[in-house]
Amino acid sequence: MNLLLLDEQDFISSDVVRVSGRRHDQLRNVIKVHPGKLCRAGVLGGMRGHAEVLSCDEKETLLRFTAEDAPPPPLPVTLLIALPRPQTYTKVLNCAVEMGVKRIDFINSFKVEKSFWQGSRLKEEYIENELRLALEQCADTILPEIHFHTRFKPFIEDELPEISPGAARIAGIPGADSVPEDFAGKPVLLAVGPEGGFTDYENDFLLANGFTGVGLGPHILRTEFAVAALLARLSVRI
Amino acid sequence: MNLLLLDEQDFISSDVVRVSGRRHDQLRNVIKVHPGKLCRAGVLGGMRGHAEVLSCDEKETLLRFTAEDAPPPPLPVTLLIALPRPQTYTKVLNCAVEMGVKRIDFINSFKVEKSFWQGSRLKEEYIENELRLALEQCADTILPEIHFHTRFKPFIEDELPEISPGAARIAGIPGADSVPEDFAGKPVLLAVGPEGGFTDYENDFLLANGFTGVGLGPHILRTEFAVAALLARLSVRI
Repeated sequence: MNLLLLDEQDFISSDVVRVSGRRHDQLRNVIKVHPGKLCRAGVLGGMRGHAEVLSCDEKETLLRFTAEDAPPPPLPVTLLIALPRPQTYTKVLNCAVEMGVKRIDFINSFKVEKSFWQGSRLKEEYIENELRLALEQCADTILPEIHFHTRFKPFIEDELPEISPGAARIAGIPGADSVPEDFAGKPVLLAVGPEGGFTDYENDFLLANGFTGVGLGPHILRTEFAVAALLARLSVRI
Repeated sequence: MNLLLLDEQDFISSDVVRVSGRRHDQLRNVIKVHPGKLCRAGVLGGMRGHAEVLSCDEKETLLRFTAEDAPPPPLPVTLLIALPRPQTYTKVLNCAVEMGVKRIDFINSFKVEKSFWQGSRLKEEYIENELRLALEQCADTILPEIHFHTRFKPFIEDELPEISPGAARIAGIPGADSVPEDFAGKPVLLAVGPEGGFTDYENDFLLANGFTGVGLGPHILRTEFAVAALLARLSVRI
């Protein structure tokens, strides 16, 4: 936990927060805080700063929060990614959120197994918990939007134009000749395929819809590392 | 498994291999091969090509291997990384090997917990198994070298000059101003710190020993994604 993420309802006065549950356990048993200890903290959707521990007993931790700076700027990349198998899905969520992505659209594709759409990890409660953990890791306070689209073609043709209009459209396509250039802060829609890649039909469909294919180098990367590598290449700030 | 990795001792004639154990289980129960099926395959330390299934019974799979091309070129990056906690260590091994790194030096650092050096994952058998799985994922055949150094300063001062002499020395330092440039195929020694980063003393020591600090962007990345992002930035091929 690089940042203690606070909710509005944690505040019991204008600057004092009461934290219980998982965050309290971590403060008490992992970080082993004591009165006077300063922790990095931030308010969900708001400012970051520090929190001074006032007390920490078996039940709860009380802290005084002081706002200091804005959360880090978002990465202007929207990630469209074929829904991966459950464990990989969680890693992709972690990776994209920790690199600053603020919108992820999980899409269907020929090689996405039907069972992946039934997983408990697609439920709101699971996602919110993972997103909060990722924000605590990367010291951000802004929750990303997560969307799911069970139809590939209608999503690309009908819905995509309304998402980030004017963004450069880039698709990671194993074996493509060109390498991802640096978009230096300009908005990008990045499409990443499933294990085994998009089908030829899907690749052609993406290219016909304004995507440029970029290669992923001579090695076959597992999905979460392909996402990390592509996001790093597309953004100069890493 | 994107490549069936074969050992010299799998060959029962000049081109027929007999595969049992984990690889056989995967061929039979996951890929569900049948006689005539073609699989991508490669010989450890040698050529890649394809293998045609001749038979597959409960005990073993017989295949005929045909060599076709060389393994992918290595990434000319030597990774020096503070030994991470066990689960992260495995992810770093996977990530670096799958991106083509052929030498990883795990080093000690102030924030590395002593217990990390006692883990069973540092044993040769564990490492070889992980490396083989990573090669099967990324379709490479060349095993990387893995080294461990329990002393930070003597390693940097005395041993490092003999490792990849002439390589650019780059250290990922959170908060550093400069971004990693593209080395476009030139050799790089990349140093990555532990969770929480190198200490100021360690950072200064790296800078005094010819390393240039590069930043990791405004978000705090977990180690395996920092490694993926830095490797992607340092190498134009992703």
